[in-house]
Amino acid sequence: MLRTHDLGTLRAEHIGQTVTLAGWVARRRDHGGVAFLDLRDASGVAQIVVRDEADFHHLRNEFVLQVSGTVERRPEGNENPALSTGEVEIIAETVTVLNAAAPLPFQIDEHVEVGEEARLRHRYLDLRRPAPSANIRLRSEANRVARELLHREGYIEIETPTLTRSTPEGARDFLVPARLAPGSWYALPQSPQLFKQLLQVGGFEKYYQIARCYRDEDFRADRQPEFTQLDIEASFVEQDDVIALGENIVKALWQLIDVEIPTPIQRITYRDAMARYGSDKPDLRFGLELTELTEFFKDTTFRVFQSAYVGAVVMPDGASQPRRTLDAWQEFAKQRGAKGLAYVLVQEDGSLTGPVAKNLSDTERENLAAAVGANPGDCIFFAAGARNESRAILGAVRVEIGHRTGLIKDGDWAFVWVVDAPLFEAASDAVASGDVAVGSGQWTAVHHAFTSPKPEFMDTFDTDPENALAYAYDIVCNGNEIGGGSIRIHQGDVQERVFRMMGIDAEAAQEKFGFLLEGFKYGAPPHGGIAFGWDRVVQLMTGSDSIRDVIAFPKTGGGFDPLTAAPAPITAQQRKEAGVDSKPEAKRDGAKRDGAASDAASDAASDASTSAAKQGAAAAK
Amino acid sequence: MLRTHDLGTLRAEHIGQTVTLAGWVARRRDHGGVAFLDLRDASGVAQIVVRDEADFHHLRNEFVLQVSGTVERRPEGNENPALSTGEVEIIAETVTVLNAAAPLPFQIDEHVEVGEEARLRHRYLDLRRPAPSANIRLRSEANRVARELLHREGYIEIETPTLTRSTPEGARDFLVPARLAPGSWYALPQSPQLFKQLLQVGGFEKYYQIARCYRDEDFRADRQPEFTQLDIEASFVEQDDVIALGENIVKALWQLIDVEIPTPIQRITYRDAMARYGSDKPDLRFGLELTELTEFFKDTTFRVFQSAYVGAVVMPDGASQPRRTLDAWQEFAKQRGAKGLAYVLVQEDGSLTGPVAKNLSDTERENLAAAVGANPGDCIFFAAGARNESRAILGAVRVEIGHRTGLIKDGDWAFVWVVDAPLFEAASDAVASGDVAVGSGQWTAVHHAFTSPKPEFMDTFDTDPENALAYAYDIVCNGNEIGGGSIRIHQGDVQERVFRMMGIDAEAAQEKFGFLLEGFKYGAPPHGGIAFGWDRVVQLMTGSDSIRDVIAFPKTGGGFDPLTAAPAPITAQQRKEAGVDSKPEAKRDGAKRDGAASDAASDAASDASTSAAKQGAAAAK
Repeated sequence: MLRTHDLGTLRAEHIGQTVTLAGWVARRRDHGGVAFLDLRDASGVAQIVVRDEADFHHLRNEFVLQVSGTVERRPEGNENPALSTGEVEIIAETVTVLNAAAPLPFQIDEHVEVGEEARLRHRYLDLRRPAPSANIRLRSEANRVARELLHREGYIEIETPTLTRSTPEGARDFLVPARLAPGSWYALPQSPQLFKQLLQVGGFEKYYQIARCYRDEDFRADRQPEFTQLDIEASFVEQDDVIALGENIVKALWQLIDVEIPTPIQRITYRDAMARYGSDKPDLRFGLELTELTEFFKDTTFRVFQSAYVGAVVMPDGASQPRRTLDAWQEFAKQRGAKGLAYVLVQEDGSLTGPVAKNLSDTERENLAAAVGANPGDCIFFAAGARNESRAILGAVRVEIGHRTGLIKDGDWAFVWVVDAPLFEAASDAVASGDVAVGSGQWTAVHHAFTSPKPEFMDTFDTDPENALAYAYDIVCNGNEIGGGSIRIHQGDVQERVFRMMGIDAEAAQEKFGFLLEGFKYGAPPHGGIAFGWDRVVQLMTGSDSIRDVIAFPKTGGGFDPLTAAPAPITAQQRKEAGVDSKPEAKRDGAKRDGAASDAASDAASDASTSAAKQGAAAAK
Repeated sequence: MLRTHDLGTLRAEHIGQTVTLAGWVARRRDHGGVAFLDLRDASGVAQIVVRDEADFHHLRNEFVLQVSGTVERRPEGNENPALSTGEVEIIAETVTVLNAAAPLPFQIDEHVEVGEEARLRHRYLDLRRPAPSANIRLRSEANRVARELLHREGYIEIETPTLTRSTPEGARDFLVPARLAPGSWYALPQSPQLFKQLLQVGGFEKYYQIARCYRDEDFRADRQPEFTQLDIEASFVEQDDVIALGENIVKALWQLIDVEIPTPIQRITYRDAMARYGSDKPDLRFGLELTELTEFFKDTTFRVFQSAYVGAVVMPDGASQPRRTLDAWQEFAKQRGAKGLAYVLVQEDGSLTGPVAKNLSDTERENLAAAVGANPGDCIFFAAGARNESRAILGAVRVEIGHRTGLIKDGDWAFVWVVDAPLFEAASDAVASGDVAVGSGQWTAVHHAFTSPKPEFMDTFDTDPENALAYAYDIVCNGNEIGGGSIRIHQGDVQERVFRMMGIDAEAAQEKFGFLLEGFKYGAPPHGGIAFGWDRVVQLMTGSDSIRDVIAFPKTGGGFDPLTAAPAPITAQQRKEAGVDSKPEAKRDGAKRDGAASDAASDAASDASTSAAKQGAAAAK
């Protein structure tokens, strides 16, 4: 080693010792022929005193030095109690420049004065800053804690392939030309879903992997083309078993940041979550539930409220918002697809004002505040129209109220399991809400195509799809879905019935998932699992603004890496060798496939689609 | 859980308890109205007694059952001491079929009666067999032990990108079209080499990752298009530090299979390894060194031995090999590029026979046996010609002798570090030995382009490249290179000098490695690392024939996955969306690139090229 001690470990007990240190010049102060250097390594910072001007006159910030010298007590009054090494300083005897540093594109300190693109282009400098460095270190600890827990529980870590078959799971696959089979392509996996299920068929019973996954999506919001999930699957388990394991993992993780999460974590049904919070990932750091007013307004003369659904959410003390702010709320709602955001202000004397108030009947005006639980000084926001869309708007307004009013406090944590989601939704609803289009069915899976119906709907899910519930569970933290999973279908006939409901006929099922259905023939055990969106989990734990902050070398919006300038053009030679332009050979054994069937892309989706892959669906504030 | 106990845990202490079990029918024996089932789960096997014929008449092997019943002591004389559960049996009260199993394509037992393609096509059945299952489980343990050790040593686990820039490192890149930048491509990394070096520039000091790597090679021998390496890099370290860490890892791993590896592990210089064993990955489970006879034959009249190099290796008791066997040795040598394999048989009376003997002078005949250390009854094999090629043949012959004569014994382990390799080799030699062609230089890196010269050659490596030694180290186990690494270049000017020697001019260097050179400007610390070829390590630990045996879902020779039938054609729609046929946009910021420069593919290679990626260079026997 080029050093005898880590800088951050030096204490009074080392006084008098000769040490050799190595690190970066974090700061330099000259005092008449003597220089004081803050030398930094991964362990911390210590003060070096250099008395020979020849040794220090050429030093600049971020030079890499090796310093030999003696540890001494700092002169009285010069101690720095803010620094763990603040009692001592090292009197340098020799200073060796291990490497120089050119003037930096930006300074290495807490304060960020440059844009993200510049930081990412020189990410190795950005990572020397305390916060990014701490994020990456915490991520390593998160991996460790999760693995140790899973090991204690008997889980086996198994790597699954990443050069695999294109199997639509709710997003586009990244494709890789296969040089040795010109015209054929591998796909990068959207998740290890099918492999982890086949590992259950293979008798491993308890599998996990911190797995790289890939989705070629439009990188709106806070998504990455490659992302990581903690992927878990087990045999002979029931929902409560997976939930208990998931809670233990979350508990162990948050202990890393000294937060004790009480368990069991509360559960809410999907139906209740939508009704009370207007979201399938409710932020339960605060109350402020939606109130349904459909019945209340059933005889209203106000055209806007003559709707399939009317609901409201109350903003405490919102009546005093200036007109400009109230106009901004309209904009907020419009950006989310609503026509606007009706509101009523409850004045201190109990009278109702605002543009909507005059359209209400006397009875409505008299009873409204009580119906929604509003007090004098509050503002009542309304949404009316289709039930799902209206609730979604109110849910978004509710969270925004939480932030603006301080009901959501830094350091608060609220976890909840959302259970009993519908097995299917109308394909048109899925498309409307921005999910991937279904193949050809009227119905599509809310969770994913491999999710089992709850046992009580096993016989009826295809005759009464609207009311069938899925054996699925998502875990939500502060309004962010951080993980999700389900008990899977393990019987080929049930799987085929689900595919059929989704408009995936036998041929297409065989084409896409034939190897899974084949596996189910030979004694597939009952099984289930969960996947945590690992980037999101660590983002929340570190209080970061974006998952980019917890990825060593992230990509920007368009999937561009400012560091390496990837992606980039390839040469004609590379293109030729890769066989990109070759016609595929005749069909390979076992690979029945034709263009038409392949185009019937299903929305069959893995755990990833409900957790990791929905990374950015509700970016943390 | 669908069970109360794991099958393999049942003991006499459970007698009298009511239990619920779940697992697969491994075997069924009917005895007049009673069936005895061996029920298997991941923990083991227990005997179930089913008395109701309605419960068992329809059961077949690999049916998945849930059985409730009572644990009883087996009738006297029926105990099975070979089974840990052999004292007890479970009298079934209820038997629930959780899933049926169709007749199997092959039986699940130790004996393998089908080919690898069939096993891999139904890999989930293959993995139920004891050996494949144990391999995957040991691999999980290997991961755990390595990670725990690295954590104790202060190493941070950091994920590096896998959608990155095409950066030739000694093999072809797999490419991925970037839909959002049509005409541009990502590359899958051949190793995290550049990222792990940049993490050192970023101040992490101690990095590791069990990383997936990709090389688009011709899958001769025992290689996989995707493979795994344990990748390690640290700052302020010297060769001895990395070697000590590597030894600790190897020691901890082999303890998993109850083998205690004495440390320190011996070291041999590259030069000695080539001279004494004819290999840079010598198998030291046995002696039998090569003898150089160039001097001995310097005045020979035998034309074949009038060569730049003559060497020999002795096969103990080889004189009695029948002519047919000796002919087969010729074939063995020819397959490795030699013209044949000269030999001399030392008869019991000391006389020399065989076709070569009569060409030797009396003096040569008289002194040969002593010169090579041969005894009566031995066979002496010769190679003559160019030094490197001749030694390589003798090295291969030596290992083959080791196997044939029993000098290599099952259960023997011999580890060795090969150090002080040359920094450069002639580009023509690299090509001749099957490595990737160099860009345009006369010299190419033996290890890789980022390997530092040893300090004593820092000033002279570009004026006297032939004699410069690299600060590199490879670890060899039983003749297999299982890991390798080096102290890296951390100074931009040294890196540019090395590139220049390799014929990578400033422009090409900027094009390919510009972001690394840019990083080196801002205070890169001295650093070094190592990578273990993880598939190979686990293959050796498990005594498997192939790395395919330690990969959950491996590919066959041509990169084909018999399970999913990947790779496969894509649809016109997929092709269109991926932007495969688009012309790239104008050059992106920071991505100076032209076709000519890109074509100057260098042989710059990462740690992977000397460890993981050379996976199959000497497949274990």
